[in-house]
Amino acid sequence: MPTISNKGIAMPQSPIRKLVPYAEKAYKQGKTVYHLNIGQPDIKTPQIAMDAVKVHMLDVLAYTKSDGSEEYRKKIANYYAKHDIEVDADDIIVTTGGSEALAFAFGSTMDVDDEVIIPEPFYANYNGFSVAAGVKVVPVISKIENNFALPPIEEFEKLITPKTKAILICNPGNPTGYLYTKEEIQKLAKIVQKHDLFLIADEVYREFAYDGVQHYSIMQEPNLEQHAIMVDSVSKRYSMCGARIGCIISKNKEVMETAMKFAQARLSPPTFAQIASEAALQTPQSYFDDVIEEYVSRRNTLITGLKEIEGVRVANPKGAFYCVAELPVENAEDFAKWLLESFDYNGETIMVAPAAGFYSTPNTGLNQIRIAYVLNENSLKKSIKILKEALKAYNA
Amino acid sequence: MPTISNKGIAMPQSPIRKLVPYAEKAYKQGKTVYHLNIGQPDIKTPQIAMDAVKVHMLDVLAYTKSDGSEEYRKKIANYYAKHDIEVDADDIIVTTGGSEALAFAFGSTMDVDDEVIIPEPFYANYNGFSVAAGVKVVPVISKIENNFALPPIEEFEKLITPKTKAILICNPGNPTGYLYTKEEIQKLAKIVQKHDLFLIADEVYREFAYDGVQHYSIMQEPNLEQHAIMVDSVSKRYSMCGARIGCIISKNKEVMETAMKFAQARLSPPTFAQIASEAALQTPQSYFDDVIEEYVSRRNTLITGLKEIEGVRVANPKGAFYCVAELPVENAEDFAKWLLESFDYNGETIMVAPAAGFYSTPNTGLNQIRIAYVLNENSLKKSIKILKEALKAYNA
Ligand SMILES: Cc1ncc(COP(=O)(O)O)c(C=O)c1O
Ligand SMILES: Cc1ncc(COP(=O)(O)O)c(C=O)c1O
Repeated sequence: MPTISNKGIAMPQSPIRKLVPYAEKAYKQGKTVYHLNIGQPDIKTPQIAMDAVKVHMLDVLAYTKSDGSEEYRKKIANYYAKHDIEVDADDIIVTTGGSEALAFAFGSTMDVDDEVIIPEPFYANYNGFSVAAGVKVVPVISKIENNFALPPIEEFEKLITPKTKAILICNPGNPTGYLYTKEEIQKLAKIVQKHDLFLIADEVYREFAYDGVQHYSIMQEPNLEQHAIMVDSVSKRYSMCGARIGCIISKNKEVMETAMKFAQARLSPPTFAQIASEAALQTPQSYFDDVIEEYVSRRNTLITGLKEIEGVRVANPKGAFYCVAELPVENAEDFAKWLLESFDYNGETIMVAPAAGFYSTPNTGLNQIRIAYVLNENSLKKSIKILKEALKAYNA
Repeated sequence: MPTISNKGIAMPQSPIRKLVPYAEKAYKQGKTVYHLNIGQPDIKTPQIAMDAVKVHMLDVLAYTKSDGSEEYRKKIANYYAKHDIEVDADDIIVTTGGSEALAFAFGSTMDVDDEVIIPEPFYANYNGFSVAAGVKVVPVISKIENNFALPPIEEFEKLITPKTKAILICNPGNPTGYLYTKEEIQKLAKIVQKHDLFLIADEVYREFAYDGVQHYSIMQEPNLEQHAIMVDSVSKRYSMCGARIGCIISKNKEVMETAMKFAQARLSPPTFAQIASEAALQTPQSYFDDVIEEYVSRRNTLITGLKEIEGVRVANPKGAFYCVAELPVENAEDFAKWLLESFDYNGETIMVAPAAGFYSTPNTGLNQIRIAYVLNENSLKKSIKILKEALKAYNA
């Protein structure tokens, strides 16, 4: 019998998937499960995007260009101009989700055994893309007691080796909700310039910045043209995760020409989704205002509620729609399974993501969970109550 | 300045892309260009697929499951049952095009420096996927004088080393149009069993089999469950290249669990495209009958026409919609550029793909081109005339 690849063996399972069999048990037991574990927002997709594909006039559903339709790329450049980011259509390659943009960024900059430094906890699939590319993730720990702010830059310095090719940040962060300040971005800019590294910024949550704080993009930082690679996506911005449209952006021509070779190998990003995404760019500001308002009030409800539970510590998220909470349990994964398998409060329970899967350092974040506030406030309130009662019962 | 990856440097450019600047010159000169160089059919997409997205009822364009919507996978299994292939929905992972299925097949079975044997000439992007995975392509040459039939199995035997993990075939072949016989598939089955290899079959053109010959799939071959990995796609079958939907199929559970980890890392295949692809499964047989009839008559026109040109040798394609022709020129790439840049016949010229890009052995197929018969017969006839006149002028 032929054997699979070592790479395949090393590919991590998503920290959420492990819980799926337990969720299935919960359903079988007839429980209602509030899903605080996923990054799939419940927010409506802008009507204009949904309608655009309804009125398509195509006879042949053809490949688009490998870097995406030109019309769409021009409009994306306009979108960034409105957000004080100066890029040309040629600095953009449309990808199949931010996911593929990450894969292209890894492939274009790093070889097998190269190293990428990533503040942890981080989006778990960075591990998958790293394993797929044979790249080594070197984590630098950010702390819940600092709201997961950028670790001291000396901590990065210590980790840089001749193999280091890039620093990867997620801004605002999944799972932390942390929004980097301009000063933090500037510190990163200096260090990548000093050591000739790439700075890859996953900005798929860029518009989810709260409390009047402005998001500061690596693309706004001067003199970073040859270093900066931005990853973006329509998934969260317009609640169109199923479109599978994102982009990779850089002013470094060599990077873009290389990413383009990866893009050509897979032919093109999806056509219907580009139609919807192009239309989504016309979404009125009021849509975003409403969405931000909704998330802020959900976040406030969630954080206030969590802080009221004894023994729970939570970071204060300024962006995205996640928070990491420390629980008075030894092992949050066991607790998460128990919540699904053995607990209910009036027939209801919650599903949360154990945070250990977002750390690359072993045995870290074992007592932490990630909560996605992608549910309406009523469900969130119920979820907090369930968590409170569950912790009581679990620790009894 | 940071440097890109060696992998990025090694990523090949598509053999067609090199000609694009020359095509642009031709447009600027006001020439009409017949595109015989691309795999984008002009055939209409089934109306039922195009309409399905027009009447979608989604409020939120959400991620589907990472292996694709369950409903859709069940229907795909039914489709195969009708084609005498017994697979369960669980043997199928829906992918973003056949392209991604190939990437998953490579990633799940092969590590850096592993070897895959591929009969050449082959679909050029196999090179890209190999470089991306760090895998070495070991070509075994198939010959135009044999219509590009399977090379003698001893040729494969000679190339097998401890690093060999798989044999990859394309059936029917792009660029060759060759359709493997049952006997050839059985020879391959024996050799992969003997040496514990995977047999990966790219069957994206499976329904394009002409002259009453039945396509024989590796999935129909008994006792190959642990070895066979099939790659499929809706791109060509329904002329929906822009959907970006394909699938990877295997009865080897370990392979599928591994491919699933790759699938989870990139979250999900596109949702609108799955809606269209699911609907496409209802396409009536008459659609295929018409399409096949159209391609057969195009092929006949093309092959007959090419054979009438002095010095041209052409293989007789039994499937897909490509053929490889040998021209009375030294370097077909130079000739292809010249066609665009310096030649016209009544203001018209043709764009063809130099076949050297489909060989992995250096300096092979230099005098060959690939012609895709994705144009209507009238355009094909004109194209043949242009080729004939061009060869006369070029060799004068
Ligand atoms: C931080 C981050 N980056 C990238 C992605 C990938 O999203 P997509 O491929 O849908 O654009 C996600 C999705 O959850 C994410 O949270
Ligand atoms: C032989 C072969 N395999 C795979 C593909 C990939 O097609 P897609 O990703 O559109 O399914 C193509 C496209 O031309 C092809 O010719």
